[in-house]
Amino acid sequence: MAITDSCRSDVSVASAQLAPVFGDLARNRARAEEAIRNAAGAGARLVVLPELCTTGYAFADESQARELGEPADGPTVTRWRELAAALRIVIVGGFCECDGGPPRNSAAIVDADGGLTVYRKTHLWDREQLLFVAGDTPPPVVATAAGRVGVAVCYDAFFPEVMRALALAGAELIAVPMNSPVMDPPGRTQPLAVEVVQALAAAGANRVFVVQADRTGRERGIEWAGASVICDPDGRLLAGPVADFERPALLTATCDLALARDKRLGARNDVFADRRADLYRDAATTNPTKETVN
Amino acid sequence: MAITDSCRSDVSVASAQLAPVFGDLARNRARAEEAIRNAAGAGARLVVLPELCTTGYAFADESQARELGEPADGPTVTRWRELAAALRIVIVGGFCECDGGPPRNSAAIVDADGGLTVYRKTHLWDREQLLFVAGDTPPPVVATAAGRVGVAVCYDAFFPEVMRALALAGAELIAVPMNSPVMDPPGRTQPLAVEVVQALAAAGANRVFVVQADRTGRERGIEWAGASVICDPDGRLLAGPVADFERPALLTATCDLALARDKRLGARNDVFADRRADLYRDAATTNPTKETVN
Repeated sequence: MAITDSCRSDVSVASAQLAPVFGDLARNRARAEEAIRNAAGAGARLVVLPELCTTGYAFADESQARELGEPADGPTVTRWRELAAALRIVIVGGFCECDGGPPRNSAAIVDADGGLTVYRKTHLWDREQLLFVAGDTPPPVVATAAGRVGVAVCYDAFFPEVMRALALAGAELIAVPMNSPVMDPPGRTQPLAVEVVQALAAAGANRVFVVQADRTGRERGIEWAGASVICDPDGRLLAGPVADFERPALLTATCDLALARDKRLGARNDVFADRRADLYRDAATTNPTKETVN
Repeated sequence: MAITDSCRSDVSVASAQLAPVFGDLARNRARAEEAIRNAAGAGARLVVLPELCTTGYAFADESQARELGEPADGPTVTRWRELAAALRIVIVGGFCECDGGPPRNSAAIVDADGGLTVYRKTHLWDREQLLFVAGDTPPPVVATAAGRVGVAVCYDAFFPEVMRALALAGAELIAVPMNSPVMDPPGRTQPLAVEVVQALAAAGANRVFVVQADRTGRERGIEWAGASVICDPDGRLLAGPVADFERPALLTATCDLALARDKRLGARNDVFADRRADLYRDAATTNPTKETVN
């Protein structure tokens, strides 16, 4: 909390857009560490790294995910815990988790004291279904040194329910490690990529900060959206997307978390209090049968 | 249904961005009728008009809303029903509803045979709370001659639950009559207005078309966002926003409703089937208390 302004609660944050090389664990770990150090050097108290940032994304099959994966006490996350504690920075990053059982598409949330929470992606995209087992625990909200941090991994964030649930659970900032392939090249002619639109909409609808870290660099024929952004609770861009989306980059912004704790909107509205949950539940939990016709 | 392509189900639609003059019912009704006729003349089978498009928005107090309001069988909606039947066009438009009781911020959904459904806005924005009583019936999905049409009025659409519920209830297209004041002028420096971002995100997350009709023209010191757009189920712009957002305009696009009935996304995903409703419900229906910390 800033003492000079009792209403503000500023936290500097960073989103690291990286270009992993598939399967080159040593090199990718070094790049992640460099990004963490750069973020800390820039004054950030939280840094978000992309999904699966030490292995790369395009596994040929499950056995390759097993081979390249590592447990949550393996070298990648252990190093992140050391760095977090040494640099006093919160790290949220994606890694391929495997401890002998089926591989998981996981995110580590490492607090600035090295404390660890692991989240296993619950909505698997496309071929991930052939490689990973989905998690059965909801995306968490973790009380960290850099505020209450929610986490959603890539396709998770495409579900408005996920972002809403994280915000209702008290997240002030939602970290989104991402690996988003470009699905439709003509989409680039739009003013903003769909992944950026989703992040902005979730930030605005829930009045939270969203720190999204996408990957870049071609990999086995896949192009990436480069949709790294930092969004504020008004649903506006604080940083990113990177103009040349094929370039690694470190985005930084100052987030006043007090804004995310205040769900009021204008003089008479509040995006949480104004919810009419009684009116949503029916339709939200049933199949398409409702119809109102006079 | 187009016979030449059995997979397609094309419907031409229009969004009419209008500039009502506050309190000038005759003039505003004439402008709405002109827009309906222009839409039909352009081949549209559905036209969306802005919120409160025959009265204007900035009522001084409730008594003025009572004075300018009219029942659902009053001149405005009666005329829309005549026009719909004569022109074979579905009309969705906002009007100030008053039948002697408290005023309502309502939308008429008029089918191409003149059949009427009335929806009363359930999420009231700012001073609307001093003027109107909120509806207690969820936003409806109406089976019309132009497909299954959901409706949400302005601030309703800001709630991801509303748009999700309409889509789950079978809406292929969501009509959004809107009167959105510009809340924060610096927002204009963003690539897209927040109201456009929300419409695009809802379209993409739910794989539906969104036809949003905002108003324009200054009124009692209020500026408007001019956020009229037509969005496709990929969350991309088919038409709008109008470059000069202070100008009335008629946006048109062809919507293949078959795309909105197919919730698949890529080879292995489906935005409805992939929902993990068991994981959302807890957080979505409780207060911010959940926390996961190791």
